[in-house]
Amino acid sequence: MDILLQYVVKSFDRSTKVIDFHYPNELLQEYNWELADQPQNLEEILMHCQTTLKYAIKTGHPRYFNQLSTGLDMVGLAADWLTSTANTNMFTYEIAPVFVLLEYVTLKKMREIIGWPGGSGDGIFSPGGAISNMYAMLIARFKMFPEVKEKGMAAVPRLIAFTSEHSHFSLKKGAAALGIGTDSVILIKCDERGKMIPSDLERRIIEAKQKGFVPFLVSATAGTTVYGAFDPLLAVADICKKYKIWMHVDAAWGGGLLMSQKHKWKLSGVERANSVTWNPHKMMGVPLQCSALLVREEGLMQSCNQMHASYLFQQDKHYDLSYDTGDKALQCGRHVDVFKLWLMWRAKGTAGFEAHIDKCLELAEYLYNIIKNREGYEMVFDGKPQHTNVCFWYVPPSLRVLEDNEERMSRLSKVAPVIKARMMEYGTTMVSYQPLGDKVNFFRMVISNPAATHQDIDFLIEEIERLGQDL
Amino acid sequence: MDILLQYVVKSFDRSTKVIDFHYPNELLQEYNWELADQPQNLEEILMHCQTTLKYAIKTGHPRYFNQLSTGLDMVGLAADWLTSTANTNMFTYEIAPVFVLLEYVTLKKMREIIGWPGGSGDGIFSPGGAISNMYAMLIARFKMFPEVKEKGMAAVPRLIAFTSEHSHFSLKKGAAALGIGTDSVILIKCDERGKMIPSDLERRIIEAKQKGFVPFLVSATAGTTVYGAFDPLLAVADICKKYKIWMHVDAAWGGGLLMSQKHKWKLSGVERANSVTWNPHKMMGVPLQCSALLVREEGLMQSCNQMHASYLFQQDKHYDLSYDTGDKALQCGRHVDVFKLWLMWRAKGTAGFEAHIDKCLELAEYLYNIIKNREGYEMVFDGKPQHTNVCFWYVPPSLRVLEDNEERMSRLSKVAPVIKARMMEYGTTMVSYQPLGDKVNFFRMVISNPAATHQDIDFLIEEIERLGQDL
Repeated sequence: MDILLQYVVKSFDRSTKVIDFHYPNELLQEYNWELADQPQNLEEILMHCQTTLKYAIKTGHPRYFNQLSTGLDMVGLAADWLTSTANTNMFTYEIAPVFVLLEYVTLKKMREIIGWPGGSGDGIFSPGGAISNMYAMLIARFKMFPEVKEKGMAAVPRLIAFTSEHSHFSLKKGAAALGIGTDSVILIKCDERGKMIPSDLERRIIEAKQKGFVPFLVSATAGTTVYGAFDPLLAVADICKKYKIWMHVDAAWGGGLLMSQKHKWKLSGVERANSVTWNPHKMMGVPLQCSALLVREEGLMQSCNQMHASYLFQQDKHYDLSYDTGDKALQCGRHVDVFKLWLMWRAKGTAGFEAHIDKCLELAEYLYNIIKNREGYEMVFDGKPQHTNVCFWYVPPSLRVLEDNEERMSRLSKVAPVIKARMMEYGTTMVSYQPLGDKVNFFRMVISNPAATHQDIDFLIEEIERLGQDL
Repeated sequence: MDILLQYVVKSFDRSTKVIDFHYPNELLQEYNWELADQPQNLEEILMHCQTTLKYAIKTGHPRYFNQLSTGLDMVGLAADWLTSTANTNMFTYEIAPVFVLLEYVTLKKMREIIGWPGGSGDGIFSPGGAISNMYAMLIARFKMFPEVKEKGMAAVPRLIAFTSEHSHFSLKKGAAALGIGTDSVILIKCDERGKMIPSDLERRIIEAKQKGFVPFLVSATAGTTVYGAFDPLLAVADICKKYKIWMHVDAAWGGGLLMSQKHKWKLSGVERANSVTWNPHKMMGVPLQCSALLVREEGLMQSCNQMHASYLFQQDKHYDLSYDTGDKALQCGRHVDVFKLWLMWRAKGTAGFEAHIDKCLELAEYLYNIIKNREGYEMVFDGKPQHTNVCFWYVPPSLRVLEDNEERMSRLSKVAPVIKARMMEYGTTMVSYQPLGDKVNFFRMVISNPAATHQDIDFLIEEIERLGQDL
């Protein structure tokens, strides 16, 4: 306990490092991590805990901006400890009575917030957004061609899914796994802000139909991974309605904005979706993992996935079997992911999540306002951030004098990786970078930790300049 | 902390109830579980924790025998708390340096124990055995027809998977999801002990080939869910070799026996498998979830699943990229499931797991020896248990005088559900029951909690008789 609480305290202390970085071979050599025949004593076990935490990333540190999931909510953490202590599975009411009810209550609330009448519909907590998106694809296919369950893809015409070129790679991963194939995922063009262009979507749907293929799914993104862009959901919904295609919204990252009166307009049209992925472990700061897939039509998940295992789902039990929800999952045993979200929601209220989200978005705007006209910065796209994603290049003084040609691009592409490597070696802060399309490596700043402040944003800028000015 | 530790202490206390059972509508009405706009105070939050645990199943209780995952290991629990506190994801070394290394070390050790030379090969911790089995199917398909990834199932002939009629339902679930279809999963006959009959396997493979189908996977089971049967892996391996078919072993439940010198012979031939599912969260008592999929051929998982997301797997990072293992997963974010297993292994040693497993198997034999000749009991199959599964009917006095006819069967089928319901209402113990094939509802006793003793087995028998003698 002392070791863990000490780590928590350090995570919030700006004078400690975000990471004490060592290269893999260093860490492998420095310690003996091997598993042996004989037991170790308590003292050694505690030392392993200390060592593990010494080299861990402090994902709750206010200057850790590297991923979409950051922060360390104390109620969420306590709830996760309780979950571990209860050590059960979600398949039946019999072995997880309260957790099953809380999942029911929480998913219903999330559907109400999405805007489905009376919170009706279905859903599940799944092990991450990629799996939630795969569920959506699986259910959309089942809705159109239920015979796939028994007969496989050989029984149906070629199915085509559509998603934007900025969407998450899990759509392709899902299509590969489900036997649909990545070639059948058509990437729709985006505008310069990373939003799907509806006219291109419609064009590609018509094209696919002309070839005799069957469009079965459009996955719009609410909060893209890199730009934080929101696809125009209303326009997408109109197209899906016109061509009778399942509309999925991947709001893994953007779903949190539904909690904010100020920002939820960015997801207008989500209420017209057939399914929605929403990861409270991202923008809402719930400990990992907590991802929900919400489905508008009730019963579909069950028919799609059920196999009636008689050793789990006995039909002659003494309670209401509609609470044995396990057979709608792809998993058999399923981790309890709901309790941390539920308890945080009780502790913060919807109002608390709203304040959290509004604050993070305000911080992103603060960063944007500082760097948009600052010497040495170039924005990757114009305009105020719609989510907390701020994408920019830092251009060191030596590059500022160069003309905008290939050599400059090539040199600029090497700037972010070097600054990032130095950040990790100093351990002062962490922010992600990547190339995208024809754009060379740029920084992608994201903020989901409500512990971050204006001063932390100022610090990030100073640190980038300190570590990059000689490049 | 007090609330949690109090619960842990109670979990081990035989005088407390395993469950304080309430029907779903009672629990829903008794408390207000709803999510509101406004926050609640700490006192209320703590009360929710208490309420949640009050109605939880004590899965660590020595008289809880209901599922394959039971027990509450204190080192495992501490490790899970540490994992929650570290609150990170497994996709890159960058954000989970130690956990990535521990996964590497632990999976290698598991492969050594399976018997692959030098522990070579590949693997991943996945969210449960069903997903691990689905991975095996996915990888087997990719190995034979890599073009499925891009072109989907339409590009390949009809694929057929084989598994026994006693195998886990996740094989069919996986086939449905992967676009193979449940009709293409052929269920092979079992002998009276629940073991796959190799001659029937070979016959069905030949039959499928004659129809022009392509056998691509045999999934043998090491430790079936209900009978605890071990398929004859050596014979299955010979057949797979002869027909060039991927051999998977679903050792989710039976894998733990590999830790025991006394019992590992039951998995002879597992070293010839191409892939193995092994869930340390079952027989080895690791907190939920901890399931591994091990693959003999290195690199296959990566080629099968990778999508090269440039925002995560940047190729110009400053460390050895082979430790960025995230792209071989179906998931994007992946929960850290390795640490609890690793820390328990350090604390117990291989020798500790061996003692744990030998003890549980000895308890099962103890139960078997008591009831095999006891009045009022009938064994579902003959012979000593191979795993901790003991399957039996309790026949109340009123049924003992009846002839073996349909009426008796029909009455017998109602006995186990009533006794189980009474067990839950009294909260004294829990054991599973189910029908299987033409066998009506019988009890399936399993033991994976090393805290259980001979007295707990005696108690179970007394309790069944106390609750069932009037039926």
